[in-house]
Amino acid sequence: MAAAAALAERARPLSSPNPGVGAIIIKDGIVVGRGWTQPGGRPHAEAMALEEAGEAVRDATAYVTLEPCAHQSTRGPSCASLLAASGPKRLVYGARDPDPRTAGTGIKILADAGVACVQIDSEAIQQSLAGHLMQFREGRPHVTLKLAMSLDGCIAMANGESRWITGDAARAHTHRERARADAILVGGETVRSDDPQLNVRLSGLENRSPHRLVLTHGNAPDGWGAVHSPEDVRRLTGIGYLFIEGGAGAAGAFLQADLVDRLLIYRAPILIGGGRAGVSDFGLDSLRAAHGRWRSDAHIRLGEDTLEIYTRTR
Amino acid sequence: MAAAAALAERARPLSSPNPGVGAIIIKDGIVVGRGWTQPGGRPHAEAMALEEAGEAVRDATAYVTLEPCAHQSTRGPSCASLLAASGPKRLVYGARDPDPRTAGTGIKILADAGVACVQIDSEAIQQSLAGHLMQFREGRPHVTLKLAMSLDGCIAMANGESRWITGDAARAHTHRERARADAILVGGETVRSDDPQLNVRLSGLENRSPHRLVLTHGNAPDGWGAVHSPEDVRRLTGIGYLFIEGGAGAAGAFLQADLVDRLLIYRAPILIGGGRAGVSDFGLDSLRAAHGRWRSDAHIRLGEDTLEIYTRTR
Repeated sequence: MAAAAALAERARPLSSPNPGVGAIIIKDGIVVGRGWTQPGGRPHAEAMALEEAGEAVRDATAYVTLEPCAHQSTRGPSCASLLAASGPKRLVYGARDPDPRTAGTGIKILADAGVACVQIDSEAIQQSLAGHLMQFREGRPHVTLKLAMSLDGCIAMANGESRWITGDAARAHTHRERARADAILVGGETVRSDDPQLNVRLSGLENRSPHRLVLTHGNAPDGWGAVHSPEDVRRLTGIGYLFIEGGAGAAGAFLQADLVDRLLIYRAPILIGGGRAGVSDFGLDSLRAAHGRWRSDAHIRLGEDTLEIYTRTR
Repeated sequence: MAAAAALAERARPLSSPNPGVGAIIIKDGIVVGRGWTQPGGRPHAEAMALEEAGEAVRDATAYVTLEPCAHQSTRGPSCASLLAASGPKRLVYGARDPDPRTAGTGIKILADAGVACVQIDSEAIQQSLAGHLMQFREGRPHVTLKLAMSLDGCIAMANGESRWITGDAARAHTHRERARADAILVGGETVRSDDPQLNVRLSGLENRSPHRLVLTHGNAPDGWGAVHSPEDVRRLTGIGYLFIEGGAGAAGAFLQADLVDRLLIYRAPILIGGGRAGVSDFGLDSLRAAHGRWRSDAHIRLGEDTLEIYTRTR
């Protein structure tokens, strides 16, 4: 299932609007088929793995990160019926699909066809499906807040100078994260003062630059979409993963609305002193209330800098 | 030599005013004597190790973190002459002693007595002698700046609430670091607003609470010493290790004077947002000038918190 979750990461974000799913079919200890949701959302991971496995799927075990879909489409039959027809002995699936067109029906179709179904969920699977699960569970995108800061929490000097706090490796990593998002959002002040491109400037990924959004009460500039409040992201369609790149006001606004699921902190080994803080007031009542909200997931060295990843505990 | 440097750490800070030195004597692959500078500064590490080794020191190898002293004292003969008389085959030493009473003379005495002398220095040895080396090289104590901060670099909420940002393990670690310092310093505002005890509240180490200093233009309260500017620490005597515990103004003042050698950042996995910054303006000219000053030495998990240790590169 860990390998299937890793395969699923290949799908993101090009599988949009469909979730990035990974599938592996194993017969007698040998991998006979692998698949992940293809660009545009089709073929699904299961269809791709079944195509590769061919006849070998009979009496095999299929590992899929998400409950196979139960809904027919003009673009093809449902994965549940495809799988049921191909005769695997066993299905191991990760997350139950909260999409009401499937929710439990996918498993029922397979069980009714005599396939033994077992659920093995994990943190890696939940993370690989975060955008899809968040859309159906909470009706909004999965939100990552990125901060590039000094040791003392500044995102710029007092005079606004912010180039550069982090180094090449950290900035390249940010571009990779952009390439995995469906949309990027920044605050209005950041657009006005920095005129950021927010595109992906990594070789081979230039065409992955996501949709650009600005948090503003006014209108968005050409080439940008406007979001009038954090809650407004609930109205976005087809956006599974939203990546917020600051500034401090946008960070504070989303934190105040408790709409941040993941923090990426790129930290440079520098002190600035009296600089611009990375996060503005978000209405914290007490220090006690600040604790227990963020779980450390990773601490990664990127050149001279470090990347700290935190997940909101809910 | 790594083991000798670790032994040396046992001496600190009780060996004051003498440097904490470690010594190991090895004969035929067996440790026959170990020593570290004793409380009050005597016996020296070498004397303690020689006492333990007895006759076994003849033709043995002595490992000592610092060049053996060459100066007789009313409290005993010099280590160089003691060692020379006891007949080891070889001396491996770490740092050359910058104390002019020894500087090179200790090695000369031993070499003249037919002992083969080899220097093997290392970062661990330099760190174990940091207070002593800084006093003789720069005429001031070795200075550590401690900051207990949120992810966004705040040491308190905007209303001043600062209890607690870090958890029990981090606070206990701070007390251990206090117990290794000769003096602690805080800013005048911190004394006025927090009336901090700054004592060591660890079982068995209560009597290790260091001398308390306040950075102030005025007078110090009872039980405190006054330091009128960062440069003023050059006038302190008998202080090898100075531990600065804030606030932001004191941190900024010492950074502006470039008198911070080591950063200890206790970082809690919380966001505060619009809180009080940990480091005030210290006159940084440009971001470019901020880089290349701090080398990451360690990243240690302490309960929910992390401790980041940085050393000033010079």
